Amino acid sequence: MATAVAEAAAMRRAIALAARGLGSTSPNPVVGCVILDASGEVAGEGWHQRAGGPHAEVHALRAAGDAARGGTALVTLEPCNHTGRTGPCAQALIAAGVTRVVYAVADPNPTATGGAQTLRAAGISVEQGLQEAAAAEGNAAWLTSVRLGRPHVTWKYAATLDGRVAAADGTSRWITSAESRADVHRLRAESDAVVVGSGTQRADDPHLAVRVVADTEAAVVQPLRVVVDTNGTAVTPGARVLDDTAPTLIAVADDATPAYEGAETVRLPRSAEGGLDIPTLLDVLHARGVRSVLLEGGPTLAGAFVAARAVDRVVGYLAPVLLGAGPAALSGGGITTITKALRLDVSETVRLGPDLRVTATLVAKEH
Amino acid sequence: MATAVAEAAAMRRAIALAARGLGSTSPNPVVGCVILDASGEVAGEGWHQRAGGPHAEVHALRAAGDAARGGTALVTLEPCNHTGRTGPCAQALIAAGVTRVVYAVADPNPTATGGAQTLRAAGISVEQGLQEAAAAEGNAAWLTSVRLGRPHVTWKYAATLDGRVAAADGTSRWITSAESRADVHRLRAESDAVVVGSGTQRADDPHLAVRVVADTEAAVVQPLRVVVDTNGTAVTPGARVLDDTAPTLIAVADDATPAYEGAETVRLPRSAEGGLDIPTLLDVLHARGVRSVLLEGGPTLAGAFVAARAVDRVVGYLAPVLLGAGPAALSGGGITTITKALRLDVSETVRLGPDLRVTATLVAKEH
Ligand SMILES: NC(=O)c1ccc[n+]([C@@H]2O[C@H](COP(=O)([O-])OP(=O)(O)OC[C@H]3O[C@@H](n4cnc5c(N)ncnc54)[C@H](OP(=O)(O)O)[C@@H]3O)[C@@H](O)[C@H]2O)c1
Ligand SMILES: NC(=O)c1ccc[n+]([C@@H]2O[C@H](COP(=O)([O-])OP(=O)(O)OC[C@H]3O[C@@H](n4cnc5c(N)ncnc54)[C@H](OP(=O)(O)O)[C@@H]3O)[C@@H](O)[C@H]2O)c1
Repeated sequence: MATAVAEAAAMRRAIALAARGLGSTSPNPVVGCVILDASGEVAGEGWHQRAGGPHAEVHALRAAGDAARGGTALVTLEPCNHTGRTGPCAQALIAAGVTRVVYAVADPNPTATGGAQTLRAAGISVEQGLQEAAAAEGNAAWLTSVRLGRPHVTWKYAATLDGRVAAADGTSRWITSAESRADVHRLRAESDAVVVGSGTQRADDPHLAVRVVADTEAAVVQPLRVVVDTNGTAVTPGARVLDDTAPTLIAVADDATPAYEGAETVRLPRSAEGGLDIPTLLDVLHARGVRSVLLEGGPTLAGAFVAARAVDRVVGYLAPVLLGAGPAALSGGGITTITKALRLDVSETVRLGPDLRVTATLVAKEH
Repeated sequence: MATAVAEAAAMRRAIALAARGLGSTSPNPVVGCVILDASGEVAGEGWHQRAGGPHAEVHALRAAGDAARGGTALVTLEPCNHTGRTGPCAQALIAAGVTRVVYAVADPNPTATGGAQTLRAAGISVEQGLQEAAAAEGNAAWLTSVRLGRPHVTWKYAATLDGRVAAADGTSRWITSAESRADVHRLRAESDAVVVGSGTQRADDPHLAVRVVADTEAAVVQPLRVVVDTNGTAVTPGARVLDDTAPTLIAVADDATPAYEGAETVRLPRSAEGGLDIPTLLDVLHARGVRSVLLEGGPTLAGAFVAARAVDRVVGYLAPVLLGAGPAALSGGGITTITKALRLDVSETVRLGPDLRVTATLVAKEH
């Protein structure tokens, strides 16, 4: 039998393994699994690596082989019960002879629940809730998308201490350090889609793909690059987002006549406040399997996401720099008085070279 | 003989003791002193508590009594050699029979140097430089004022993550938490003067005094409250800065006709850019013995200080709040392009309740 200490260590490990799947498992959750043998030693590990591939439990059971018999499975999410592309994990655990299953988060997905019941019916000891908060945090994007029926949105910005994203003359290269800019590539790699507005497209001609480091090449799944370009005039032939490094989707109005060629286009209704309707954009992305969106700006589009209550997490890269003039990090959003301000919780602050990365999350509430 | 470890611990303690004097020793530095007896045990401690009172060494020698004989003195600043109001400390150390003196920072003040020489001439073993950086950091205000001939300026602001100090309708109570606001009183207590502009005076009618907590009452020296009110029209009779909690100085233009009564007034030249001339204001404060200024805003006056290259340290209280509209934390300063941005070093980040306090310092350079 595994001790409580061994189970706790194994669950921590399973949560870390799950995180490796961020950015490549959508529309599925990220899941990690560790199998302990009958004496409580680690016998196998696995994580869900990409949509369509084997689930975490299957990877871990394969690695454990016969050692799983009489052992314990630690899983970050309730094992599935449905026969998807890879067969139900509950059955695989039963067949492998596991006698105890500990999972952190119950599966909120109606088509997948019942795994715990099936395991119990087979005489397996089942426990839920170990390190639930940490596991839920690791799966925040997927859990949010199940709960709200739209992708989880992280708004990322890079600003000075006085909240500017560019100087008065529009120059902004570089406010933040090379370390911060490298970290953005990690955020992108963990996201299913990266979104910018036509203003950023025009000002920066951004590439938006993940810069691939040689030895991790195989693992990176490029995010979908999305430009919100109402009139189809900001993305022009030769734009860097039109290269073949990553897929690209340009959102334009129903009545627009795009200036570019060779990129997939989605037509959306205009919003009464100007620009395109953000909830419809999110619906379209959700329908394509996008569960996590990295909103890279700029300030105007971010304001529209705030107004649509579609910002779940904020990652601010703050440079110890003062400008005193220039555009603010966030513009618009419809908040006019202090009592209506959008309040978040700081979940992490990290030093990145000279800069500070501040992560803040919207306090979870029903919308 | 004291071991190197005992001396290091004693210097750390001396630096902590010195900090207790912040806000009450100007125009003198803060200084801490620990005396170790001949066997290396702590025999006495002291710090310079207020201008005109005994120096740190004198306090510590008194506490040590005969135990100082054959012992070591650890001092954060080079012992003085001149006969000020309390007699030279070098002589006091010699008279007490101390055989070794270790000090962190050499005294840059021309009227005070020579202490080390005097000690050496008396046959005492003298060493300089132990924990010099930490001791200099603790005395940053005084050292800056000696170097630049003007007070050290800390600009404090409270803002949202997107850099706003108020909402679009002007409301700003409260962006930051009670914890952050309490911390500002600590900053004030450590400062010789607190400065605001006429805009803040008009909008907030601030009190600017240190809120005294019952059991520390005796120790708090209230800072000088300074309002920069060009035309003498923002401070009106009944203004809270006119009460008798702390001294107050109103800076007005040479040709102004003040609307208030009962506060000390200083007349300053107007600046070509509007408002009063900031370097002259700092000269006046320096001449009054002010060595540390806490600039509490608002954004416009802070911009003028930035333009005058008179911001040495920034303390930002950042609330995890988004507004999307409203005045920016810093306005003006004359920086128009990114390469001219004022770059600082983050020296500390601390969580204060829900907020983040970020301290950044100007990289020291000759002006
Ligand atoms: N430091 C950073 O983190 C960062 C990040 C990104 C950008 N930037 C800087 O920000 C500047 C660009 O700012 P920006 O605000 O103009 O760019 P933006 O937010 O990328 O684009 C704004 C534009 O998006 C279009 N749009 C489409 N649907 C919208 C909707 N529902 N609501 C609002 N807008 C919608 C609008 O133009 P149409 O309707 O005409 O298409 C709008 O003008 C550049 O200087 C860039 O360098 C900085
Ligand atoms: N969150 C925070 O940390 C914080 C702190 C302070 C204030 N605030 C907010 O900021 C707002 C007030 O902003 P503000 O910018 O108007 O206030 P301010 O910076 O306090 O005052 C600006 C005024 O100071 C006078 N002044 C005198 N000499 C000057 C010089 N050399 N350069 C520039 N100005 C000089 C000018 O008016 P005259 O020449 O006519 O006298 C100028 O309009 C209020 O809403 C207040 O609540 C926020």
